[in-house]
Formats: sequence, structure tokens, C-alpha cells
Amino acid sequence: MVYTQAGSPVTSFSACGTRPFQPAGETAHTAEAKIDFVYPEVPFPSNTLHKRWGEANIRKMVRYHHALLRKSVIGALFPTDDAAFAFATEKTADFFVEALGGDRNYTPVHGHPALRMRHFHITIDEKGREIWLMMYKKTINDLKMPSACIEAFWNWIEPLSIRMINRRTTVTDIARYPFASMWPHLDQSENR
Amino acid sequence: MVYTQAGSPVTSFSACGTRPFQPAGETAHTAEAKIDFVYPEVPFPSNTLHKRWGEANIRKMVRYHHALLRKSVIGALFPTDDAAFAFATEKTADFFVEALGGDRNYTPVHGHPALRMRHFHITIDEKGREIWLMMYKKTINDLKMPSACIEAFWNWIEPLSIRMINRRTTVTDIARYPFASMWPHLDQSENR
Repeated sequence: MVYTQAGSPVTSFSACGTRPFQPAGETAHTAEAKIDFVYPEVPFPSNTLHKRWGEANIRKMVRYHHALLRKSVIGALFPTDDAAFAFATEKTADFFVEALGGDRNYTPVHGHPALRMRHFHITIDEKGREIWLMMYKKTINDLKMPSACIEAFWNWIEPLSIRMINRRTTVTDIARYPFASMWPHLDQSENR
Repeated sequence: MVYTQAGSPVTSFSACGTRPFQPAGETAHTAEAKIDFVYPEVPFPSNTLHKRWGEANIRKMVRYHHALLRKSVIGALFPTDDAAFAFATEKTADFFVEALGGDRNYTPVHGHPALRMRHFHITIDEKGREIWLMMYKKTINDLKMPSACIEAFWNWIEPLSIRMINRRTTVTDIARYPFASMWPHLDQSENR
């Protein structure tokens, strides 16, 4: 929830249409300012995953994930040419390695990741983001990411993926996929 | 500008990428919550335009505007079939007549306008919104809307058009087109 400087809540469109439409009358009236949604904060993990699993596994993870995406219903968002697809995959791998605390091969070549900006040329709606995220869930499980590292990794990519959404198809709030609901057998929060 | 409950400003993506990218280190760090932009308030006009210009002219205005749109670069967003195009145009005319204080032929048939929701099936980006708006400027001039009514009408449709944007292609703030910059010869604000 966000507020005006005066402290009034700024509502989102998901609350729209709940009051009857008010046409023009003898006096003017004003529909309040709104936001679409708040892009939640993104907690970056520490470099533990990189230290425990290593660069080779992080690269393997990105390649596996991209291969799943290419076969998914959002596959058309990726280059059809094999060489172009491999180039995009390795660029993404460079980003993940650097972001997770490994070698810096991304920013020296490409500059600031500015991930939202870099994705504007492809249309990413709420459903596209969910597919991207669920393919990571499968990747994490299939490649057996060290279980102690999953929570911090997921808590990073889950809100991060929201930042790539650039096409809204609904006024509904963006779905959240908390770690505890994705890996209930790993969730230790009750014991903490 | 909007704020958290604690009073901190919530920044937009247009401020992104100005600090160096911070990869994972020994300790975790968090990227703050963001918004895309605030959809500004929409001041509805009083029923003066409808009283002075009448329903027939409002309908003529919507038809003229739609005909301009059909020939514009966003023409592909509209039905290609003539009958379907005419139906969409008259539905929009019903909305404008009702919203401006005339006969209520829209909401009894279609329900709440919920304009943002109704436009989700077509992709409307910042450029599409600008074309829609500039075609209204031309319509207002070509059809000689009573000059005393232009300001209130423009101050309604200009922010209203922002609510239809559902595809972002940039992190830049949404362009505003104030009445005084569009019709400088009509602007009386300096004399008020």
C-alpha cells in the first residue's frame, strides 16, 4: 500500500468499478489518482549459492531453464535461431553468475542490467512471468540445487520476475508465490 | 509522488540504473519496492458541454474521431469489418453522451464503463495513447467545439487516456499534454 504526501491511501485499479459510474452533473467531480500495483522489494541473496554450488552449476541451471522456456507456451518470445538462442542464454548465465556473486562478465560488457528496460522489446504479461517462474521451480528441483540455498534464491527471483511485466491483462493484483507454498517440506519458518 | 506508510518516497523505474549494479556479497541486500507511475486524477467536466453543444454534436465528434483513428497508425486496433467498426463507434458515443451528462444509454446496457478493464484485449502503449489524444485535438478543432468548453473536456480526456495504457515500452514518465500547451490562444489562466 502506498500513500499521498497527505497520508491518504492511493488505491489500485483492482478496486475499480465497485462504485456506480458517476456521469457529469451540474458540478464537476474528480476521479482520484491511482496506481496499477507496487513492484515489491527484491531481496538479493548473499553469495552462498555461488560458493556452495559454483559457477558451472549456475550456468547449467540457466541453460536448463532456457531450454524449458523454449519448449513452453512462451517459447516464441525467444530467438528461433539456435546461435542467437545460445547467445541469449549465455548472456543470461553471465548475469546470474555475476548477480550471485561470481565472476563479473556481464556488467563490463553490457552495462547495468536494468532488467525491466532490457525486456521492453518483448511482451511480458502476468502469465508469461508465471511460466518463467514455474520453469525455475522445475529447474531447481530437477537439478537439485542445494536445499539450504533454495529459499534465498527463490525469494530473489520471485519478486524480481514481477519487474519484467510490461503488459497488463487484468486489474487483479500480481500473484505471489511464497517459498513456503512452493517447497512446504523445506520451509523451516515454523521452527525458527 | 507516493509514499510508504512510514513516509519514505516510493520511486519509479524512471530513476532506475542510476546507481551501479550491486551483485551478491557476503551479506544480502534488498532492492526497494517501486511503482511504474501514478495514474493522475481525472477531473470530470460538468454537463456544460452537453447543454451547449448537444448530443448530436457529441456523437458526431466520436464518429469523426474514430474515423481519424481508423486511418491512423493505430487503425489496426479497431475492427476491420465496417458493421463491427460502426457498432464500436456508437457504443463509444453512448459512453461519451452519458459521461458528459446526457441520456444514459451506456451503463444500462453495458454496465460500469471500467474503461481500463474493457481495453485489456487490445495492446495500448504510450504511443497509442498519444495518437488517440492528438486525434481528439484535431477533432475538437475541426468540428469547432465551443471554445469555452474545450478546457474542461481536454482536462478530462487527457488524464483519462492514460488509464488505458496497458503496455509499457519505456520507464520514462507518461507524457502530459496540458490544455495551455495545446490551445495557448484559448488559455486564460494568466488572467484568472
